[in-house]
Amino acid sequence: MSWRPALPRLPILEWGRELDRPALLDDTLAGVIVAVMIIPQSLAYALLAGLPAQAGLYASIVPLVLYALLGSSRVLAVGPVAVVSLMTAAAVGEFAHVHTAHYAEVALALALLSGLMLTVMGLLRLGFIANFLSHPVISGFITASGLLIAVSQLKTLLGVQAGGHTLPEMLISVTLQAHAISGLTAAVGFGALVFLLVVRGGLNPLLRSCGLSPRAADLSAKLGPIGAILVTTVAAAALDWQSLGLKTVGAIPAGLPPLTLPTWDLALWKELATPALLISIVGFVESVSVGQTLAAKRRQRIDPDQELVALGAANVGAAFTGGFPVTGGFSRSVVNFDAGARTPLAGLVTAAGIVLATLLLTPALFHLPQATLAATIVVAVLSLVDFKMLARTWRYSKPDFIALAATMALTLLQGVEMGLVAGVTVSLALHLWRTSQPHIAEVGLVPGTEHFRNVHRHQVRTTPELVSLRVDESLYFANARAIEDRINDAVARQPALRHVVLQCSAINDIDASALDSLQAIDERLREAGLQLHLSEVKGPVMDRLQRSDFLQRLSGRVFLTHYQAVMSLTPAVDGRPRS
Amino acid sequence: MSWRPALPRLPILEWGRELDRPALLDDTLAGVIVAVMIIPQSLAYALLAGLPAQAGLYASIVPLVLYALLGSSRVLAVGPVAVVSLMTAAAVGEFAHVHTAHYAEVALALALLSGLMLTVMGLLRLGFIANFLSHPVISGFITASGLLIAVSQLKTLLGVQAGGHTLPEMLISVTLQAHAISGLTAAVGFGALVFLLVVRGGLNPLLRSCGLSPRAADLSAKLGPIGAILVTTVAAAALDWQSLGLKTVGAIPAGLPPLTLPTWDLALWKELATPALLISIVGFVESVSVGQTLAAKRRQRIDPDQELVALGAANVGAAFTGGFPVTGGFSRSVVNFDAGARTPLAGLVTAAGIVLATLLLTPALFHLPQATLAATIVVAVLSLVDFKMLARTWRYSKPDFIALAATMALTLLQGVEMGLVAGVTVSLALHLWRTSQPHIAEVGLVPGTEHFRNVHRHQVRTTPELVSLRVDESLYFANARAIEDRINDAVARQPALRHVVLQCSAINDIDASALDSLQAIDERLREAGLQLHLSEVKGPVMDRLQRSDFLQRLSGRVFLTHYQAVMSLTPAVDGRPRS
Repeated sequence: MSWRPALPRLPILEWGRELDRPALLDDTLAGVIVAVMIIPQSLAYALLAGLPAQAGLYASIVPLVLYALLGSSRVLAVGPVAVVSLMTAAAVGEFAHVHTAHYAEVALALALLSGLMLTVMGLLRLGFIANFLSHPVISGFITASGLLIAVSQLKTLLGVQAGGHTLPEMLISVTLQAHAISGLTAAVGFGALVFLLVVRGGLNPLLRSCGLSPRAADLSAKLGPIGAILVTTVAAAALDWQSLGLKTVGAIPAGLPPLTLPTWDLALWKELATPALLISIVGFVESVSVGQTLAAKRRQRIDPDQELVALGAANVGAAFTGGFPVTGGFSRSVVNFDAGARTPLAGLVTAAGIVLATLLLTPALFHLPQATLAATIVVAVLSLVDFKMLARTWRYSKPDFIALAATMALTLLQGVEMGLVAGVTVSLALHLWRTSQPHIAEVGLVPGTEHFRNVHRHQVRTTPELVSLRVDESLYFANARAIEDRINDAVARQPALRHVVLQCSAINDIDASALDSLQAIDERLREAGLQLHLSEVKGPVMDRLQRSDFLQRLSGRVFLTHYQAVMSLTPAVDGRPRS
Repeated sequence: MSWRPALPRLPILEWGRELDRPALLDDTLAGVIVAVMIIPQSLAYALLAGLPAQAGLYASIVPLVLYALLGSSRVLAVGPVAVVSLMTAAAVGEFAHVHTAHYAEVALALALLSGLMLTVMGLLRLGFIANFLSHPVISGFITASGLLIAVSQLKTLLGVQAGGHTLPEMLISVTLQAHAISGLTAAVGFGALVFLLVVRGGLNPLLRSCGLSPRAADLSAKLGPIGAILVTTVAAAALDWQSLGLKTVGAIPAGLPPLTLPTWDLALWKELATPALLISIVGFVESVSVGQTLAAKRRQRIDPDQELVALGAANVGAAFTGGFPVTGGFSRSVVNFDAGARTPLAGLVTAAGIVLATLLLTPALFHLPQATLAATIVVAVLSLVDFKMLARTWRYSKPDFIALAATMALTLLQGVEMGLVAGVTVSLALHLWRTSQPHIAEVGLVPGTEHFRNVHRHQVRTTPELVSLRVDESLYFANARAIEDRINDAVARQPALRHVVLQCSAINDIDASALDSLQAIDERLREAGLQLHLSEVKGPVMDRLQRSDFLQRLSGRVFLTHYQAVMSLTPAVDGRPRS
């Protein structure tokens, strides 16, 4: 139980000193590339979250600056991301109608609350909470979220008004609007979608065959969406598609992000606490796993508690500058890394790029079709969907599969919050159930050796007077009774029994409940004329046992090795226990 | 994951054949002694539960018969017990006012629901659910319940009207009624209390010095309450204390238990589900631990799943015969055992004794002062209160102490349900937190041996090219990241590192999350030019790993022993790794 609060550091003081001319150049180039990539993404994810497009730009300025100052990853690119935007839409939609001023206020409150939670978790070193999202739960959740997001874009691709936060709701809602589909919107949307899928699949090899280096080809393919956006925006402007029913991004106020004060409505905050916590944890998990993967490639480390503080500050920043919840994104961080970013200076450059965009580019975005943005979202989230892990997890572990399937099903059918909560609950319950049924093997001596093996798997020597049990699990409250049952069973089956020896080599801990059980076992054995012995007890476990009176009251002894125990308890003529 | 539903047995077919003349005599004697002991107890616990006194008698007839037919313990005595009665009062008090017909109906519904839950848990072999009540939670809960029950009797001992379900509520309620204290009631109540405490402390040695055998002396002392009841009942009748304000048990309808049909109010059932589950689990835990302790003394076994079915049937029986939730009681079972009971026939004799009491004894109980019953309850529950375990648990394990203290505090201040739920939550959270921070030791070779020990505790050989890490915990989602962190740390600290070897002797399981982590670690190490190896992987873990593609993709190898791993990865001239 070692725990101390974290003092937040300012990593900029470390990487700031490493900045030289080549690093400056690399970071500037990477920052510009990421800015170009995330301008449309930010608009798209703001729309996904149910907010005006400019909120996405605002969420990509101050949060990036704060993360650059505080973050421990050198290359993580922070901003609005798909899954967190979906969760924001689901959470805020409970309290306000889309496209209202109150909706935006609730989104700001959500960002503030999530930012404060992340910061406090970081300062209190509570980052381990994120560990309770098991990988099957995360991958089930991400795959289901990707599907939900893709389906949620159907309405924009088809140019209809529809709603819903679960798969059936969204499908029904879109189907009911089938009569209102706009042919032009669908043409633009699905045209962009097909173009993007082709770029994604075919452009990379094509560019390489034209002589481009693999990295450059890869980067160009990733910037493909810019092409789709340029073409459809110019076409919409030139042909006045807006008058034909095509929805575009429309007027975005030019200028720096506004100073926004989140609402101090405590009743609302209380209601937002659960979604804010879930958004915080999901965002943190996504961000940290990207950060760790990229850091390891350069033998660097990231500090999860510092990351919590940095992501917390980024979200608080988003709340005060007209944004919404943000986190470290996978694809933009990879682009940043591949483009050669060396320090968080790249993030500052990206932020500066977005500032320029909000000052100069907003008129150009007026004619950008929303259907094109929807197509870029669909293509982006398809990479989140991974059905192969269903089969892989089924093969590897049934309990993990149950947790995965429960998370996926509930996320699709009941929404993101229910899916996550159910996933965590199911995976914890299954873990506890599994450890509550520990593997306990009766072992016997392998002839000619000092080794003991499972009597059911090996030809080993045993004796009717002594039973050797090896417990393959730490002893704690949930499995304490199983040990009692197992020993009672052995005693009831072997009438000649005089000694029970527990081989403790796999026991890493014995909690108070298990200690009580051992004491009860010992007393019952003593009353029935038997002795309980332990062998191969680990150091830390022995230290703890010595803080109780268990060892003084133990009917038998504690042996260093199991062989010694069996030898001295059942001495035989030939120095071997009777078989 | 082996699981099969249980087929309930009829243990009477086993012990019925063993019945011979001596057993018949022993069982009859024990049954009569227990009947005499539990008549006043049943009345007292019915009043504690807020029900009319006769409900206690009714709850001690049919449930005993059903348990005798189905129970796997030979000597467990079933009926109303203190803690379950307190929980009944707390649960039913939420939905009805004491002394109303609806209150009794809700109590019947609670018994039925609890009985059905227990039966279903038994048939589905879900008895392991009870394991999640850790011993510190149980002992904190029992001690706090004992205190609550003792304090709840103050109002009866003082003859005032007071209420409340938590310690502060009850104390304030009684204090506000201080002006209404009945001097006569207080004299009878505290007189009986002092008498019982003296009997408890002094009678046993006195009787022994008079030549009684220790067992007979002990039994006589346990029947002490009967003396207090006889004296005060006779005095109350002779001196007409009732007219002076002393409350007595009053008129009890003579005759067999009524046939009662619990209410089929589904909304009520839904609300009662949580308290019924808690009552079921607490009752089961209490009953099974008594049963196991007594069975082990005679080298017998009890079957927890069969116990669930038997206790479930007993509660269903109580629900249809005017009773309330019952379970196996500690003191009455010990009396049954000490009096020589050999088979559940003793329980049938007890039930017959209670039937006689309901037919013949009820007029005699009319003048029994409620204050005397309250005194017997206070003395009985004082044995539940154990403050020494606070110090003992503090010394042994801080997390267990936290769970214990949280359970006690919340039970006293917020009531029994809140206390139990909080206790379970805290103990699960602490267990998960503890296993999420696994002990990982860097180990080195003990010179001249093939053993590896912690580099911080022993003089061992290591090499800058290879790091050996021993993980003292199964790998699962909550600790997977900790392993990643530890390895990242080792790699960042040792620039010359080429091999990371995980010694897996204490790893009993690797779940899908941990497998993903190992895979991520392996990929990161490979990209940094390092290899990951495993040694001493257990059979079941290896079986599971072979169902994934981890072993094919592993950068390094799997070694049978850690010594082989180190020898073949860092061969040196003298056959030992470089130190």
